[in-house]
Amino acid sequence: MTAPRFDVIAIGNAIVDVLAHADDDFLAANQLPKGAMTLIGPEQAAALYDRMGPGVECSGGSAANTVAALASLGGSAAFIGKVRDDQLGNVFAHDIRAAGVDFTTPAATEGSTTGRCLIFVTPDAQRTMQTFLGVAVELGPDDIDHSEIAEAQVTYLEGYLWDPPKAKEAFVKAALSAHQAGREVALSLSDPFCVDRHRESFLDLVNHHVDVLFANEDEIKSLYQVDSFDKALQAVRGHCRVAALTRSERGSVVISGDEVHILDAEKTTAVVDTTGAGDAYAAGFLFGLTRDADLATCGRMGGIASAEVISHFGARPVTPLDQLVADKLGL
Amino acid sequence: MTAPRFDVIAIGNAIVDVLAHADDDFLAANQLPKGAMTLIGPEQAAALYDRMGPGVECSGGSAANTVAALASLGGSAAFIGKVRDDQLGNVFAHDIRAAGVDFTTPAATEGSTTGRCLIFVTPDAQRTMQTFLGVAVELGPDDIDHSEIAEAQVTYLEGYLWDPPKAKEAFVKAALSAHQAGREVALSLSDPFCVDRHRESFLDLVNHHVDVLFANEDEIKSLYQVDSFDKALQAVRGHCRVAALTRSERGSVVISGDEVHILDAEKTTAVVDTTGAGDAYAAGFLFGLTRDADLATCGRMGGIASAEVISHFGARPVTPLDQLVADKLGL
Repeated sequence: MTAPRFDVIAIGNAIVDVLAHADDDFLAANQLPKGAMTLIGPEQAAALYDRMGPGVECSGGSAANTVAALASLGGSAAFIGKVRDDQLGNVFAHDIRAAGVDFTTPAATEGSTTGRCLIFVTPDAQRTMQTFLGVAVELGPDDIDHSEIAEAQVTYLEGYLWDPPKAKEAFVKAALSAHQAGREVALSLSDPFCVDRHRESFLDLVNHHVDVLFANEDEIKSLYQVDSFDKALQAVRGHCRVAALTRSERGSVVISGDEVHILDAEKTTAVVDTTGAGDAYAAGFLFGLTRDADLATCGRMGGIASAEVISHFGARPVTPLDQLVADKLGL
Repeated sequence: MTAPRFDVIAIGNAIVDVLAHADDDFLAANQLPKGAMTLIGPEQAAALYDRMGPGVECSGGSAANTVAALASLGGSAAFIGKVRDDQLGNVFAHDIRAAGVDFTTPAATEGSTTGRCLIFVTPDAQRTMQTFLGVAVELGPDDIDHSEIAEAQVTYLEGYLWDPPKAKEAFVKAALSAHQAGREVALSLSDPFCVDRHRESFLDLVNHHVDVLFANEDEIKSLYQVDSFDKALQAVRGHCRVAALTRSERGSVVISGDEVHILDAEKTTAVVDTTGAGDAYAAGFLFGLTRDADLATCGRMGGIASAEVISHFGARPVTPLDQLVADKLGL
């Protein structure tokens, strides 16, 4: 097996985030389910945007955030996802390339616009997301190139891809390609409601195609339909090589065969916006994993990356993560 | 092997607690190390008692609290510990017998008075303890009856016993008796400073004599001299049959061979006084263990007992724990 060209190749919805502050009354008045990601159509997106306060635009998308953070850690990364040849599509492509990520998926020249996610950040730093996927739903198996997948040590997939039907095919094709090339497949469950919409196929995926699973507490409980973290932990054991389970201020739990690590959250000064916390954790963890760090160190790297991203508005790091990790771990 | 007469026999310092409210300034002015148990002499105890606000007297002692809670759960228990034939000694004997615990250690007729522990409860519900052991230090190997130990399914020892030198001999004699009779030995580490004072002998004990270990986060980190909970977890794995590690509001972690459970804290309305939290946890856990409950259920029983004890002033339960456990676990 040749040395991989990329540490991680990620496949996800190419999305531009629009972030604004909002209070709980606004969420209630607009019937927005707090803390969750809801899919909306173009008319809803336009109407909601009209009611939204002054916003900030940043390139986003869960898996895209992960590879951007991975590049900031010093890793090599690529991204596959669909934008349109419009202004926001140009912004997305510019930002992810500027972050040092290889991005060559051709922009669509017709059809819907580039996807966008309206993110309402409440004073408790929680984020509530309303996503219009736009042209991202056009991503399909034709956008997956076996030889490109074979060049990455890990193929990383976001669970949100399970919503657009063609992306699901792309997803499975990529997983098969990765394993055929002797590489690993990582999956983030993304959202408890997303898990709820696609539970059976997620279970099939976890049992048969996934080596490294990322999930937060609500997601893993939703996957196994249990009411406690410990029951979810017992359920996931042995079903994938590694599971990294994030628990917000309780840190994370990493489990692999008989090995278990219970890692406290990194100390943070203030939590400003939790958008992208899980994405950054996955980046730190995968960075460690591709450098053969032990699993406790992988989890700590995830925690450090996550702590940076929640300390400011927006889902991608503003402080170079390589330096931060070196300082915190004394490397 | 005959059916055991007792679920648990506990050996510990027989102590009467004197509880009073105090603020952090009082602790600072009197140089009392917050959250810890400090040993003091009779003159210090008298002087500190003079400065203490209005108090409440309750029978205490770590292992004694555990068997009192175990009896409240419906278990059968005995206690071995030394009081003097004085008023507080009578109070201690009355209370532990009234709780349904077998207590036959003869009271000393000479020497020091019954031990007492001055407990200062700060507004954050933390307890700071200053203990005058009194006649409790006279407990020795002669007070351990092999046949009585052989009659208990579990012999439970408090780490505080490591401080009085003769009790240490009693401790080891009891552990050997229990194992000779095919029974199990449980140990609570009691206090990080107690661990610090006796680290080498505690390590020897854990490695060679203990089947079930109880420790909170500070104690287990102190035992292995590590700076994170995860490192302590890795260090303790495989060194005793079961380790049950308590983490205050983070719940508890139970580890046994390949089995690991991460149990959230039970919901409580208000935390009033954390005195006895660990003692009650050990009671719930051992109650489950002696009834062949699975380890996750043992941990939850510990959490439920602990939540009751921290909801009021004093280290022993005021609500019958058997009913509480039945309600919470739907038994």
